[in-house]
Parts: sequence; C-alpha cells; structure tokens
Amino acid sequence: MKRIAVIGQSGDIPEEVRKIAEKVGAEIAKRKAVLLTGGGSGVMEAASKGAKEAGGLVIGILAGDRTDVANDYLDVPITTGLHFDFRSLILVHSSDALIMIRGGNGTLGELSAAYMNRKPVVIIETTGGWAEKIKEVAYEGGYLDERRTVEIAFCDSAEAAVDLAFKRMEQPLDEEKNTGRIGD
Amino acid sequence: MKRIAVIGQSGDIPEEVRKIAEKVGAEIAKRKAVLLTGGGSGVMEAASKGAKEAGGLVIGILAGDRTDVANDYLDVPITTGLHFDFRSLILVHSSDALIMIRGGNGTLGELSAAYMNRKPVVIIETTGGWAEKIKEVAYEGGYLDERRTVEIAFCDSAEAAVDLAFKRMEQPLDEEKNTGRIGD
Amino acid sequence: MKRIAVIGQSGDIPEEVRKIAEKVGAEIAKRKAVLLTGGGSGVMEAASKGAKEAGGLVIGILAGDRTDVANDYLDVPITTGLHFDFRSLILVHSSDALIMIRGGNGTLGELSAAYMNRKPVVIIETTGGWAEKIKEVAYEGGYLDERRTVEIAFCDSAEAAVDLAFKRMEQPLDEEKNTGRIGD
Amino acid sequence: MKRIAVIGQSGDIPEEVRKIAEKVGAEIAKRKAVLLTGGGSGVMEAASKGAKEAGGLVIGILAGDRTDVANDYLDVPITTGLHFDFRSLILVHSSDALIMIRGGNGTLGELSAAYMNRKPVVIIETTGGWAEKIKEVAYEGGYLDERRTVEIAFCDSAEAAVDLAFKRMEQPLDEEKNTGRIGD
Repeated sequence: MKRIAVIGQSGDIPEEVRKIAEKVGAEIAKRKAVLLTGGGSGVMEAASKGAKEAGGLVIGILAGDRTDVANDYLDVPITTGLHFDFRSLILVHSSDALIMIRGGNGTLGELSAAYMNRKPVVIIETTGGWAEKIKEVAYEGGYLDERRTVEIAFCDSAEAAVDLAFKRMEQPLDEEKNTGRIGD
Repeated sequence: MKRIAVIGQSGDIPEEVRKIAEKVGAEIAKRKAVLLTGGGSGVMEAASKGAKEAGGLVIGILAGDRTDVANDYLDVPITTGLHFDFRSLILVHSSDALIMIRGGNGTLGELSAAYMNRKPVVIIETTGGWAEKIKEVAYEGGYLDERRTVEIAFCDSAEAAVDLAFKRMEQPLDEEKNTGRIGD
Repeated sequence: MKRIAVIGQSGDIPEEVRKIAEKVGAEIAKRKAVLLTGGGSGVMEAASKGAKEAGGLVIGILAGDRTDVANDYLDVPITTGLHFDFRSLILVHSSDALIMIRGGNGTLGELSAAYMNRKPVVIIETTGGWAEKIKEVAYEGGYLDERRTVEIAFCDSAEAAVDLAFKRMEQPLDEEKNTGRIGD
Repeated sequence: MKRIAVIGQSGDIPEEVRKIAEKVGAEIAKRKAVLLTGGGSGVMEAASKGAKEAGGLVIGILAGDRTDVANDYLDVPITTGLHFDFRSLILVHSSDALIMIRGGNGTLGELSAAYMNRKPVVIIETTGGWAEKIKEVAYEGGYLDERRTVEIAFCDSAEAAVDLAFKRMEQPLDEEKNTGRIGD
C-alpha cells in the first residue's frame, strides 16, 4: 500500500486551495493509497476530509502527545511526542511521495527534508505560498541544490498531482545521480 | 479509536508465547482498537498476524527507512528514519496503553519509557524475559521508581491483558500522584 | 556563554568562502562564544579551524555515531545517533544565533528550522548558494512566511555577521509578532 | 578526548551519594575526559560541580529549549528541543562510557539505551535506586538480555568507577558477541 503525504499551509486557507486539497485527498483514497499528513488544520484537514469521505485511510503524524489538537478526519493519530520540526521529519521519512499545496515556512522545511531523503515531491504551483515561490529559485527549476538528485515536479491540478506522485514512486532513483552523500 | 501497542521479544519466541501474542492481537482487533507494534519479528509479528486475521488495523512504527524489513501483517509502516531506541519512543508516545509479552532489553527500554510518559502497561508475566523478571524488583511490585506514578498491571492471559488495558485507558490518572516532574 | 552555530555548504567550497568561514569562527572565539556546527567538512570545518586557532571552544553536532567522520577541530563531538536531517534540528535548538555561509539544501532546511524556532539568523549573502538565493524570494526580503516572526539579517563580511549575531541575541523577541503558534 | 556520561537520580539525593557523584566528576576532569550529563539536578549537578571545580569541561544534554533549567556547572548546554526520554538517547549516543549512580526510572531507561548501543556502563552499586537493584535481575549478573553483548561492570567507589570506565572504553567490543542485530 503506497503512502502519500500531503503537506501545506495550516490555519486559514483560501476556499479554492481548500477544494484542491480535498480533491487530492479523495484521489489518493480512490487509488487505494494511504494519506499521511501532519494531522493539523488548513491543507492537512482538507486533504484528510477528502480522503475520509472517499473511503480512504488517513494517518496523522502529530507533534506532541495530545490527540485533541488533531483534525476530525484521522483514522490513527501518531502522537510523536516531538516538536513540529522533528515530527515533520517523521512524516517525510514515512512517505513514498509527497504532494505540496501552498505552504509557509514549515512546509518549506518539509520540502527540504523530502529532497534530502530523495522522496519524490509534486508541487501544485498555483496554490500560492512556497508552492508558488520555490520554482523561480530552484536550481534548473526543479532541484534544491547542485547535487540535482530527485527532481521536483510541478503541476496545476489535484488530479495531475496524484497522477505524478504515482508515476514518480514507480520510477527507480537515478543511481548515477544518487551516489553523493546526503548532507549539508 | 484506541491505540494499543504490543511490545515484546523479537526474533525466535517459544510457540506458547507466539500463541498468546496472536490472541492479544486478535482481541485488540475484535474490540476495534488499532494495534501498534515496532513492526518487527517475534511477538510483534505474532500480534500483528492475530489482529490482521481478526480484521483489525495494524500500524508498525519501524526503525530506519526500509519497509521490506517489516513483518507481513502491517497496514501501514511508519518508517521513522530513526534507530531502534528512538523509534521505540515514538511507539510509546503514540499508544494509549501497552501490553508487554516476554521481552529483552529493547522491551525493557520501552517499559521504562511508558512509565515515564504515564502510559498504562499490562504485563503478561508468564511469558518469560523481562515480563517475568520485572515484578520482583519493581517498587511495591508495580512501580519503576519512588515516584509511584502509573502502576504496572500484571496478568497471565491474553484476554485478561486486553481487558486490563481497556480498563486502564479509561481510568483518569491519579493527579495527586502525577504532580511531580517527569525526569530522571 | 553564548552559543553561535555556523551553518553552510559541506564538501568543496571556494577559497574565498573558506576564508570568510574561518574568520567567522575566529571572531566567535575572540568574543568568548562557543561555536557549534554540524561537525562536517566545508564551511563547518573552516569555521571550526578558525575558532580553534583563536583559542575557542568548538562543539560538533554530528549525524550518526562515529566520531571519525568529524573534522579535526572539534573539542567535543556530540554524536546524536540521528540522520543528518534530525541532527540539524538539534543543532538549531542548541544555538542562540546562527550564521549562514553559502549552503545547499541541508543548509536551507536548517534556515527553515531556525526561523520556526525563532532563532536569529545572519546570512553572509555574498557567499553563494542559498545564502545568495533566499533574499529574492523571502517575504519582504527577510521572512520565510507571512507570520513575519524573527527577521533574517543579511550582511557581506565575517565581522559584520558576528556583530549582527551578537546584537540579535540581545534583542528580546517582538512578543506581538510572536503570539502565533509555531507550525506549518 | 574521551566523553564520559554520568547518569543518575535527579532531585534530592542523600549526602553520601552527592559526595560520590562529585568525586566521580572530579576524577573525570583530572583524567582530561569531558563530562556529559543530562544537565539537571541531583547526581547530574553534583558530578558537574566536581568536574567544574577540578577544571574540567562539562556539557549538559538538556530536554527542551530553556537553559535556565540547567544546573550551574555547565560549560555548554545542548538544548535538544526534545522530551526527557529522547534527550536521554542523545546523551547515551554521545558518550564513550557511562557511570551510573543511584537512579530512578529515567536512569533505568538510559541504562537500557546504553546496553542497546553497546556502550560500556559502570554502576556504583552502593548508591541505591536502580544502581543497587539491577544486579539481582540482570542475566548472569551483568547483561540486560540473552544477547549478552557488553557486560555491565559494578563497583563501589568513585575512583574505581572512573578507572573501570577508562578500561572499558579501551577494550575493543567482542565482535563474536556483537554480530546480532540491535533490536527489541
């Protein structure tokens, strides 16, 4: 069973972003993948709602120890006992691919962690925040440094994002590019 | 949905211990709780098999990043990217109660972490290893230090263990006992 | 005793960047602060050499468990037993301020973690890599998202960087800006 | 430079235990090793005081992010941003050997983590708590499970403890015993 994480803005999000996140969650569920998120509000909540209503399985990787801070759409809260930054790394390590929607600094950190750990990331670049900003500064439009390991994919719809995430998970890593040490 | 962790010996385990672990897994599933384990062999595998065959949901909190080291009965592997010792803490923090079956040093560490984090633990003391050893040295037979916070419960069957785990989860922590700082 | 982290590119670095990193390390030592780094090569090694030769104390927060992968200028290696991404968070949490020199994706992740944890960061923007790239996409040139919490400072020399780091450590956080929850 | 951790009871400790811990700290400093502790009160504070007064270097591996909860004898506080249980693992991974004095459940967890990570541990068994209790239940008096990896050493004085810690650090691990996987 494939594990796809949806990462993105917490708190208030524009209505159209909310709809995209819901659709991403629903598509993940329809294709029988597990949805993982940070278990919080905003994009995380919308994706979880979409997946849940489509009959999917939803896991939240939460900061701290309390389950009552999670959104209402989780099957299982994994309460890591860790701060937000550490728990985001558990989320990244536990995913086979990630889809990024909008996003503030926390999402930027998750994107960076995904790149370091060679996880495929698909960004819906029309959703604002770092999802919109990162392309212009990325190396050759798709890498986060000169190592040029796993290329970030960009798209502009929920369906395309889930399609791309599945495609990327099935591609073997380019071993020639992946011989460098993971690091700073 | 309640989350119950089964902790215990990895690797080869005696046939009777394997049966007890399977039954514990099955009982957890029948009562609609989620089973969490470290995702490995031995007690973890047997409990997962029992839960899976009884239609339950099984989550494995794995060390490292590889899913192919997990046993065959997980619905979702959470690959923490962490060493065994750190991942055991994620397992403890993510559980509402723990059931301990046999167990070597890794299990002893999980028991200690559960006590520190005030999680109820039920030990099936007839299964050998630390499950058998700990009572004789515990403070007043049920505490791991003089703070006497959450009392460890002992029993000798799978059914009793799951019964006790559910009872303990529903009991509020004794606040008078729980005012000390968590620490060393 | 103040703790200043130097973060930046590992591996081969241009000669002029190496000199800047050495000077930053030396300045930190002269002002009786402790230098913290990730303990590796490149910028981390140069800063450590500079600090050590100026009589300072140097701590390396290393990934994994081996001390023989550290550079030659550490007084104490803290071998976290964690992957690079997790150890970078320990480095950030352990610092009172950070100075960023050049840097690939790992450094970007550390910058993001520093911002989330409201640690002052000073970037020597003339050193290339993310140190050069981040300003153009930052919010109002100095923030990593709309929360606008702790402003990132930019400068173009070693002395200015250490000056700024000391100044920022002494400023109380703007509490009005800091009421939002730390998160995604 | 060797790194020796002193682990043990926090909070109030008997006067004679305090003296032993101070002497252990002083001996570590005299032999030019670095003292690592959890940075807290009780045994940690006493050992740090002893090391500091003997001119040694003292590092505290602290839970959380605040330095004002540390004792007064640290050269560098490493504020891990982690709960007590996780930070204890960083302490264990960062040590070449550990000396255990008295100790409640947190110390028991550190002992278990040290054994899992094959770090030599010397226990001053006359100091009460788990330092006194563990021998009677240990496998063959010195191992924490049937893997019988790194034997725990026992002694009854500060000098003997530091002597033994240095001896054990210099012994190569018995590779025949160390072929099993680290685990549960």
